[in-house]
Amino acid sequence: MKIANMVGDRFRETPADCQIASQILMIRGGYMKQVANGIYTLTMPARRIVRKIEQIIREEMDAIDGQEVLFPVVMSADIWHESGRYEKIGSEMARFKDRGGNDMVLGMTHEEASVHLVRGTAKPESAYPFMIYQFQTKFRDEPRARGGLIRVREFTMKDGYSFHTSQEDLEKYYDRAYRAYERIYARCGVPEVIAVKSDSGMMGGSISHEFMLLTDIGEDTIVTCPECGYRSNMEAADCVVENESIGEQPLTKVATPEQKTIEEVSAFLGVKPENTCKAVVYQENLTDKYIIVFIRGDLEVNETKLRNFVGCEIHPATEITAESGIVKGFIGPVNLNAKARVLFDKSIEGADNMVIGANEEGYHCKGFKPGRDIKVDSYCDVAKTYAGAICPCCGKKTINISRGIEVGNIFQLGTKYSHSMGLQFQSRDGSLKDVIMGCYGIGLGRLCASVCEVRHDDYGPIWPITIAPWQVHLCAMRPDKPEVKEAADKLYETLQKMGVEVLYDDRAVSAGVMFSDADLLGVPVRVVVSPKTLGRGAVEVSARDKSFREDAALEAAPERIAAIVKEMLDKVNNID
Amino acid sequence: MKIANMVGDRFRETPADCQIASQILMIRGGYMKQVANGIYTLTMPARRIVRKIEQIIREEMDAIDGQEVLFPVVMSADIWHESGRYEKIGSEMARFKDRGGNDMVLGMTHEEASVHLVRGTAKPESAYPFMIYQFQTKFRDEPRARGGLIRVREFTMKDGYSFHTSQEDLEKYYDRAYRAYERIYARCGVPEVIAVKSDSGMMGGSISHEFMLLTDIGEDTIVTCPECGYRSNMEAADCVVENESIGEQPLTKVATPEQKTIEEVSAFLGVKPENTCKAVVYQENLTDKYIIVFIRGDLEVNETKLRNFVGCEIHPATEITAESGIVKGFIGPVNLNAKARVLFDKSIEGADNMVIGANEEGYHCKGFKPGRDIKVDSYCDVAKTYAGAICPCCGKKTINISRGIEVGNIFQLGTKYSHSMGLQFQSRDGSLKDVIMGCYGIGLGRLCASVCEVRHDDYGPIWPITIAPWQVHLCAMRPDKPEVKEAADKLYETLQKMGVEVLYDDRAVSAGVMFSDADLLGVPVRVVVSPKTLGRGAVEVSARDKSFREDAALEAAPERIAAIVKEMLDKVNNID
Repeated sequence: MKIANMVGDRFRETPADCQIASQILMIRGGYMKQVANGIYTLTMPARRIVRKIEQIIREEMDAIDGQEVLFPVVMSADIWHESGRYEKIGSEMARFKDRGGNDMVLGMTHEEASVHLVRGTAKPESAYPFMIYQFQTKFRDEPRARGGLIRVREFTMKDGYSFHTSQEDLEKYYDRAYRAYERIYARCGVPEVIAVKSDSGMMGGSISHEFMLLTDIGEDTIVTCPECGYRSNMEAADCVVENESIGEQPLTKVATPEQKTIEEVSAFLGVKPENTCKAVVYQENLTDKYIIVFIRGDLEVNETKLRNFVGCEIHPATEITAESGIVKGFIGPVNLNAKARVLFDKSIEGADNMVIGANEEGYHCKGFKPGRDIKVDSYCDVAKTYAGAICPCCGKKTINISRGIEVGNIFQLGTKYSHSMGLQFQSRDGSLKDVIMGCYGIGLGRLCASVCEVRHDDYGPIWPITIAPWQVHLCAMRPDKPEVKEAADKLYETLQKMGVEVLYDDRAVSAGVMFSDADLLGVPVRVVVSPKTLGRGAVEVSARDKSFREDAALEAAPERIAAIVKEMLDKVNNID
Repeated sequence: MKIANMVGDRFRETPADCQIASQILMIRGGYMKQVANGIYTLTMPARRIVRKIEQIIREEMDAIDGQEVLFPVVMSADIWHESGRYEKIGSEMARFKDRGGNDMVLGMTHEEASVHLVRGTAKPESAYPFMIYQFQTKFRDEPRARGGLIRVREFTMKDGYSFHTSQEDLEKYYDRAYRAYERIYARCGVPEVIAVKSDSGMMGGSISHEFMLLTDIGEDTIVTCPECGYRSNMEAADCVVENESIGEQPLTKVATPEQKTIEEVSAFLGVKPENTCKAVVYQENLTDKYIIVFIRGDLEVNETKLRNFVGCEIHPATEITAESGIVKGFIGPVNLNAKARVLFDKSIEGADNMVIGANEEGYHCKGFKPGRDIKVDSYCDVAKTYAGAICPCCGKKTINISRGIEVGNIFQLGTKYSHSMGLQFQSRDGSLKDVIMGCYGIGLGRLCASVCEVRHDDYGPIWPITIAPWQVHLCAMRPDKPEVKEAADKLYETLQKMGVEVLYDDRAVSAGVMFSDADLLGVPVRVVVSPKTLGRGAVEVSARDKSFREDAALEAAPERIAAIVKEMLDKVNNID
């Protein structure tokens, strides 16, 4: 490919409204153009990167017996009614009526379509397991598209669905998929991607993992333990704290006029926030019923964990009515006379001498000890963990908190979709049973941008050679000189014949423009042919990541360059 | 791939509501499943065929310097307003409002998106020409989806757009694209596809071609001349007739009570329909204004040609008002006193002694001669041509009429989109000029089904090896016998290692089921390993199209099979 007429304007200025490096560099490099909020056209370099990612994923999915299929983008609402998601999903899903007045949706994901494809007459156990996957456009009407290809409204996704006759078989396959995902990231040049346990919502608490690329611009919070390798996303992370006795005291009421927040009360009474027990009030979305969570004063409620624990949608209480019996700012577990469900987080278990609200305007109590002053039937775990908390796995105070981008996820779906949509198999004893499913997703554009996020310098992306748009960027400096043009043209032809992917710049532009364009395109191997290098009887070969720079003798250049490319490819692909 | 757990049910019965062979066989072979009217999921065999077609097209597009990009499926209505198509296109285009209340559309085609991508600052001439293309899902809300993948509402299309600074340059590129298309069809195993001149609507009469696969189930009517190679679709075909004098006579009024149609009048007066001149009445859609076309009695009006001639949308007159002065059933060109635009088709030029309406209830005239009895300023060509008509190219009475499926089209768009959407280039003299565009489309699923339509027998498709889902279909008959299983397993492994694509059937099923499944999957080379063939120390190799059947010695089988596959591939690909 010659760069001269390549579509996509490159420029030096940082574009407006760009926050993160991958977005800035990919916009500056002409990789894409925004068509509408969160909707992009990809130009040739981005399209080539995404196609290479697609092919890596395809090979790994085929290696775990995946069958590539293609589901439609537009679906009848009928199958979404069957699964119950037509009603459940909100304005994130685009809907329209077709010319016949039928309700149609744009597929956000294809669980329904996958069950629709494979259901029919119940098949015997021997027809299982199998996995089907596709690469297809998804539209999700994200309220906050941002960061270029990191969070968009339209994107290409690999989504796979596996079908099993037992939980054991699902788990066995899930493990194969997990390892295939690790290989995919390694082959895309980001072996540092880690899998973390994730919250799988209210689907029944089955197992799921998110694959995370750690970077400060990530939207997700990751909990890790460097000691034992424990990994979880924040939503799914257990919070383990240890309370030591600070000296048991009797429960005593104290006046705390106007002191409502934990900070105010702690300061006023001269105690640490962790020696207080605060109340956080929520409401159930459907009924407005109150939920009061008693939790250690220095911790926060993890709303996802709370939602999963109570089993319904909730929100922070918007208004506390007088008739509720809740005394805002002074809520405590003792003598609480409120119309509310009361929960005790296990962060207060084992503590003593805590400050609590007295359920009376202007008063708190000191000396509270759970179990002694009130009966606690059971503690729940709804607290957000924090840096330095105790690792739920190895028990050391080693919890780390990092930011990450989710670049893939795998779920054990269970029978949610098969049950509601009537997908059964014939078990050996002749009875019909619900098929057990798993699902496996990767967003291709996001993975591309995420790689850029962790593989770039100030001048542009540094693409891993396995997904780079081209392998070699050939610069003919001073192509007006016949000897330069001739040598570069010949090298271009020869390399292409050898199967090397070459982007060729033979424009009559300055070295500055040529090199800054090359930096923005991020091709891993750069070859310069110039009057100077030819004077040395050579071309200059260097790496985009600056790891080497050498002269290759003109005659031997094609073989040397091809060998360098092969060596770089082998290095990334050699992952076992 | 093993067939055992492959998704897609195969069956023997002809499915309901299927009219054409490709649809029947692909449904029976489990290639696809309908999700909604005209919307299908493709299973693995169909997905693989379509991916191979995609790769052939990609190679040919790259060979004519195409740049692969990816436009979005969902677009903002804004750019469709700019081109004027948001208003112009009807319910064929799906529209919805996003969560922000913005009008969005599902792209039926991507002219707007392509101009949006490349516009910006006007570039110098030297930045041209270039061509960008993509493979992307399109949704068109077809009122009459039918025939399986032949006419659907959602489909994958290759659409390309080229950009030029002169008409000459566009024509030069258009010719390259034309030849690339010929190569694509040849490489897909259907070299018989022909290009026909087509109507490009009211866009200014620029050149366009449709690529047609001739088959009786085709929806398009193709006009060809076997003598000189003239080809056109019906909408664009000139109609040439020759009128000989049948003896000039004076114009005479005759009573023709109750005789209104051409058949009635001809029979009543004892003349041939071609010696009559009938009137066909249309109305302009917007104004209801009448248009009367005088045309030879045995011919029909080609409404597309009429529409292009008058330059606006028209429809057959729904009602003839009294005040129009039109006497229904008795309209004639002489003494016509009607409020209407009057056109004379050139099919009446040179005729004499014609029967015409007398513009009086119950009367016609005999002896009409255009030019003598009325003045005709000019004749138009709005008649439908017919089998046996005169070829507009070589002048012989050789016109053939056939049916065909359109499997691709190319258009010279001119400046329609660049002008309305502000895409200009800087010409050498410094002035800004509109960029000149071409566009190039192929529907992948339709091409797949069309190939099936012309390459099948009663038992299933016979896929050309270049696009076949697999190259070899390996049948282990009686896999319960260890020697069969072992030999077949080994052959499967060896062939795969040699890069041969193998579909492996090692199910414990009858020969009948195994072979009828193989017929439905249409893989070109079949290999049977059975106790019988092993008894001969061999495997049996045969062609799906029955062109050969041979024994290959067991030890030499992999090499022999690979050689057969290579030979078949070379035969299709060797097209120059």
